[in-house]
Amino acid sequence: QWMMLDWKPKRPDMLIDPFGLGRIVQDGLVFRQNFSIRSYEIGADRTASIETLMNHLQETALNHVKTAGLLGDGFGSTPEMSKRNLIWVVTRMQVLVDRYPTWGDVVQVDTWVGASGKNGMRRDWLVRDSKTGETLTRASSVWVMMNKLTRRLSKIPEQVRAEIEPYFLNSDPVVDEDSRKLPKLDDNTADYVRKGLTPRWSDLDINQHVNNVKYIGWILESAPLSILESHELSAITMEYRRECGKDSVLQSLTAVSGDGIGNIGNAGEIECQHLLRLEDGAEIVRGRTEWRPKYASNFGIMGQIPAESA
Amino acid sequence: QWMMLDWKPKRPDMLIDPFGLGRIVQDGLVFRQNFSIRSYEIGADRTASIETLMNHLQETALNHVKTAGLLGDGFGSTPEMSKRNLIWVVTRMQVLVDRYPTWGDVVQVDTWVGASGKNGMRRDWLVRDSKTGETLTRASSVWVMMNKLTRRLSKIPEQVRAEIEPYFLNSDPVVDEDSRKLPKLDDNTADYVRKGLTPRWSDLDINQHVNNVKYIGWILESAPLSILESHELSAITMEYRRECGKDSVLQSLTAVSGDGIGNIGNAGEIECQHLLRLEDGAEIVRGRTEWRPKYASNFGIMGQIPAESA
Repeated sequence: QWMMLDWKPKRPDMLIDPFGLGRIVQDGLVFRQNFSIRSYEIGADRTASIETLMNHLQETALNHVKTAGLLGDGFGSTPEMSKRNLIWVVTRMQVLVDRYPTWGDVVQVDTWVGASGKNGMRRDWLVRDSKTGETLTRASSVWVMMNKLTRRLSKIPEQVRAEIEPYFLNSDPVVDEDSRKLPKLDDNTADYVRKGLTPRWSDLDINQHVNNVKYIGWILESAPLSILESHELSAITMEYRRECGKDSVLQSLTAVSGDGIGNIGNAGEIECQHLLRLEDGAEIVRGRTEWRPKYASNFGIMGQIPAESA
Repeated sequence: QWMMLDWKPKRPDMLIDPFGLGRIVQDGLVFRQNFSIRSYEIGADRTASIETLMNHLQETALNHVKTAGLLGDGFGSTPEMSKRNLIWVVTRMQVLVDRYPTWGDVVQVDTWVGASGKNGMRRDWLVRDSKTGETLTRASSVWVMMNKLTRRLSKIPEQVRAEIEPYFLNSDPVVDEDSRKLPKLDDNTADYVRKGLTPRWSDLDINQHVNNVKYIGWILESAPLSILESHELSAITMEYRRECGKDSVLQSLTAVSGDGIGNIGNAGEIECQHLLRLEDGAEIVRGRTEWRPKYASNFGIMGQIPAESA
């Protein structure tokens, strides 16, 4: 019961959010934070990259936990989790992007949590254009607990459950779960293989592990440039299977589904399957991406990039 | 003269800066923007990376130009520059870091411009802890104009000078210029060479060129891990010599100066020389970095990382 009493933000100035650090809305169960898209967060298409969007999701999740006063010594762990050396690990992540924002746009990210099965937690996000309210991105993820010493998965201890359950919002996932199985790619089924990928020093997080978001960059390393140039990512599903440390050497595999390579550059949608694995074959991440043609609303000039200057 | 009249921010709400987009201070010649350091901007040391700091410098520079109403169709080009296909290119950048901020810290970035010789512009930055006022970072850069079609450097046309000169602040550089020549490294003088570096799709900016900030990551790719683990970057000087496009393959060379490798991990400071070059030997960036031991204030436990958990 104390949890509910303790619910209000620890710092009253959070309510007016002077530094854009976010605040609690909707009866205390939804955390909301605005982000203005910065110049270095946009890429060759002048829009925010998928990594940028994922970074904003991560930041709101952590600020949600922090604002609730539940941040232990780790990155998102509660005090009762910290006592038991438990950390959150993500097992599944699904992101749908309707539209990518551009430099100067302000996006409003809402996030909340709920139960997922007996020993998991679901975290959802809804990203809107703060000016128009238009939905830009929806994302849903599943998290479980791991003992950071043994690296084994753990049930949710009762004391931890007591900390977090008062924050659970009972709602359907913001994204319909893509229940199609992600196939395991190998050298025979992959169309593209990129080998010898190594973490840069700056890819490591405070646990000296590669941050979840960085995997996306590596997944896309084996996607053919022709797709990146002609299409934009509209959906991604990732299943995280194993951790990646600073000394790991990775291979990125991609298979292009459907009509296949011959039709890249066409008006059609493209679907890809992905695998990140260690050199010994151990799976790190399985993934599926969907792509739609860029400038799809400009009928007739599909794929043509406007000239930079008059 | 219209420039002075037109000085005020285009949007009055800029003055209260609700979305952290920055505002003009100090008689209209200094632009100020706050950044809260986000979770994904910190690395294995729990502090903001040098790339993050450089990104904040870039963002304030662009927002300065934008807020002044001087943003043409390019990335920082004024209207008169855009008419003439002129863009800014950086030729030299010097950054001194006194202390790196951490997640949740709010930094206040001030930036202003001034003349640099006859055909250049200097842009300086001063980064402070917004709570304490402590100076965290000082940076100074020199920019010249390039015709984006011919890729040749250009004098500053009179009409462009009329646009920008009213904004020049007559002051000494915030960083004493490091006038020591940056030597040209080669295979014989370098201690470490890292080959085959290629831009990731996400490294490209809207001109399909590699953004200046990305060069730092590549420079550090050839710095030995032992330095990255035991020391933190305290200063960097870069001379930009040539553009790098999306198909470039780079080599990163590093030479460790002074007492050299044998003493890495010691209490002492380390200096490195760097070169990024194309495979045919053409120079992209020359650089020099200085490093100080991490945890330098913890006498006696130099280089020892505190245990993560009790």
